[in-house]
Amino acid sequence: MSADLQMSRRIRRTPFTSCIEKLGVSGFTVVNHTLLPKAFVNSVEEDFFHLRTDVQMWDVGCQRQVEIEGPDASLLIQKMTPRNINDAEVGQCLYLPLTTDQGKIINDPILLKLGEQKFWLSIADSDILLWAKALAIGLNLHVRIKEPDVSPLAIQGPAAQPLMVDIFGKQIEQLDFFRFGFFGFMDTQQVISRSGYSSQNGYEIYLNDSSMGKELWDTIWEAGAKYNVRPGAPNLIDRIEAGLLSFGNDMTSENTPLECGLEKYCCLTEKIEYLGRKHLIEERRVGSKRQLRGVIFSGKSEPACTQPWQLYDGELNIGQITSGIFNPNLKVNTGIALIKRGHWNIGQRISVVIGKEDVREGLICFLPFTVTENREIIARL
Amino acid sequence: MSADLQMSRRIRRTPFTSCIEKLGVSGFTVVNHTLLPKAFVNSVEEDFFHLRTDVQMWDVGCQRQVEIEGPDASLLIQKMTPRNINDAEVGQCLYLPLTTDQGKIINDPILLKLGEQKFWLSIADSDILLWAKALAIGLNLHVRIKEPDVSPLAIQGPAAQPLMVDIFGKQIEQLDFFRFGFFGFMDTQQVISRSGYSSQNGYEIYLNDSSMGKELWDTIWEAGAKYNVRPGAPNLIDRIEAGLLSFGNDMTSENTPLECGLEKYCCLTEKIEYLGRKHLIEERRVGSKRQLRGVIFSGKSEPACTQPWQLYDGELNIGQITSGIFNPNLKVNTGIALIKRGHWNIGQRISVVIGKEDVREGLICFLPFTVTENREIIARL
Repeated sequence: MSADLQMSRRIRRTPFTSCIEKLGVSGFTVVNHTLLPKAFVNSVEEDFFHLRTDVQMWDVGCQRQVEIEGPDASLLIQKMTPRNINDAEVGQCLYLPLTTDQGKIINDPILLKLGEQKFWLSIADSDILLWAKALAIGLNLHVRIKEPDVSPLAIQGPAAQPLMVDIFGKQIEQLDFFRFGFFGFMDTQQVISRSGYSSQNGYEIYLNDSSMGKELWDTIWEAGAKYNVRPGAPNLIDRIEAGLLSFGNDMTSENTPLECGLEKYCCLTEKIEYLGRKHLIEERRVGSKRQLRGVIFSGKSEPACTQPWQLYDGELNIGQITSGIFNPNLKVNTGIALIKRGHWNIGQRISVVIGKEDVREGLICFLPFTVTENREIIARL
Repeated sequence: MSADLQMSRRIRRTPFTSCIEKLGVSGFTVVNHTLLPKAFVNSVEEDFFHLRTDVQMWDVGCQRQVEIEGPDASLLIQKMTPRNINDAEVGQCLYLPLTTDQGKIINDPILLKLGEQKFWLSIADSDILLWAKALAIGLNLHVRIKEPDVSPLAIQGPAAQPLMVDIFGKQIEQLDFFRFGFFGFMDTQQVISRSGYSSQNGYEIYLNDSSMGKELWDTIWEAGAKYNVRPGAPNLIDRIEAGLLSFGNDMTSENTPLECGLEKYCCLTEKIEYLGRKHLIEERRVGSKRQLRGVIFSGKSEPACTQPWQLYDGELNIGQITSGIFNPNLKVNTGIALIKRGHWNIGQRISVVIGKEDVREGLICFLPFTVTENREIIARL
């Protein structure tokens, strides 16, 4: 069923909201108390194919920044994440799971190291501003923490690079993946990173001054005409295919990074100190209760999963698909699921129940869906 | 303009969502990562009048509880709020502004004192679970903090009392305003308070076990038929008329409790210790920069304010209306606004600008709108 999103000041607009309204946005979600446009005139499938061939502009101003600055900034951030940040360089982006003292995930931001004592956490949907401030107060750390006036705009797709070169110059080609630099726009220097929540090449412009939102949008939009630019949004088909996780969907504060396939971002020795370390080390010793897997399943093409689809091994409920949709590229229904121990083997046959009674045959597979090993599994379905 | 809310697991459903979907919900907002139904088949005006004559059931499961329990529970809560909670009694509800170390508001929950060492904070829209946990970690306090499986259902309107008596028995009549007790439902004991986010008499049932949501809803819905019960939601006309503030709308983390007329909830001596005390004491000494007021204005009946309406004293921008709508009872447009020092006098004439160019004549008045002194001001408009 479909219902309106009722607007109010509490659901914050971004510097680009007026621009995407003019372009016919038809659906929003809310992230960090902020509008995230999710649907325009085209279907998710049409947008998926366009993202793979052309270029899209995504208003991801909801990716709020938590700025942490001061002599204890790096100490505080290390306290918040199992990932060792000691070797991070200025100009680098790092994907960081953040954990509680129980080792549960409360967000999975991208860290931008702006200086030896200055960082941004570009966050998913939870108030890490409050978490970081309260930790700093309680631990009496010397840091300044705020949400700066920074609103990311993502440029994603194979034509992102030529489009960005047209506007910001040739030197943007030098930017490696998960690195950022400062680039000129209207007499200001803006942070631009080579990154984005898609499987395609792309950039994120961390616009620092919301009053310039319309100028930035219009400049890229006009220059993008020759590249067939369209407004877009994180695409569910693409995101699932690439195994890009969503905090609140595929993992919640009930889960640990080890359950979610994020062990490579966890230092499980006593080399660094962070919240939840003891629990994560113990979880690795005894094994996780659940693990994240890909699931493919048969039957008619499913639109986006809006409520979890349950998974069964015989009569036993073994987990649920939390993000799912038909993939027109792979020509199967795809989903991301946390599956109980003893049932998560790759290639295992399971049942997927859509809604209450629609039972489908499924198979457990690797994430991301694009790995070669999945081909044989898809062929077996 | 109107757009769909795109559903996903990240936007949590409540135990009552399926019930209100069957009753034709047409609009939602999102609070605490959870659906809050805001619109049904009737207009806001029709719902406003119905709320004053009959009874409504509101799915306010988005009012999440932060449970704080343990020997340091009361110490931690006192640290979080300027209101003195020392004299609070078990069974009492207290409205609490929560402040940062800078004295800025980050939420305004209702505290329920369940025991000498056990509390619920029934929160507005920000992750106080993270704030409280991080403070407890940093300060090394002996508390257990969690979000229990509790989802409030509000029963509001003049017929709330007879309806609740029919279900929970005569003893519910004994409950004073802002007190709660335990009442039996299906072999469980549930917390019910005499409270609610409306100007009308009402109750909130803190359902502790989401699997009972449908049974609770259906029981009240069926018993409510003879009282002309309808599904409803916090009503903007009623809320503004009653001067009930909304965190995120009328006040944000840019504001202090003193700016927002909440001085009566602030202990401004050194009798108790809490975050931001120094700043609030200093603000009272030098005076606030802004204060909250009611505003009435002329011209055609305005639907709900979805983006702030700017206020001018001559050429000078003096503030903005953050919640506003036409009040069919008072027969004027009404709004809640933070207004700059030097311009907030009751009765002062101002201009209200709707959108970009629609200028109206306005007058500053008292909150709530129903105070007798406002009659003369409304007559002058």
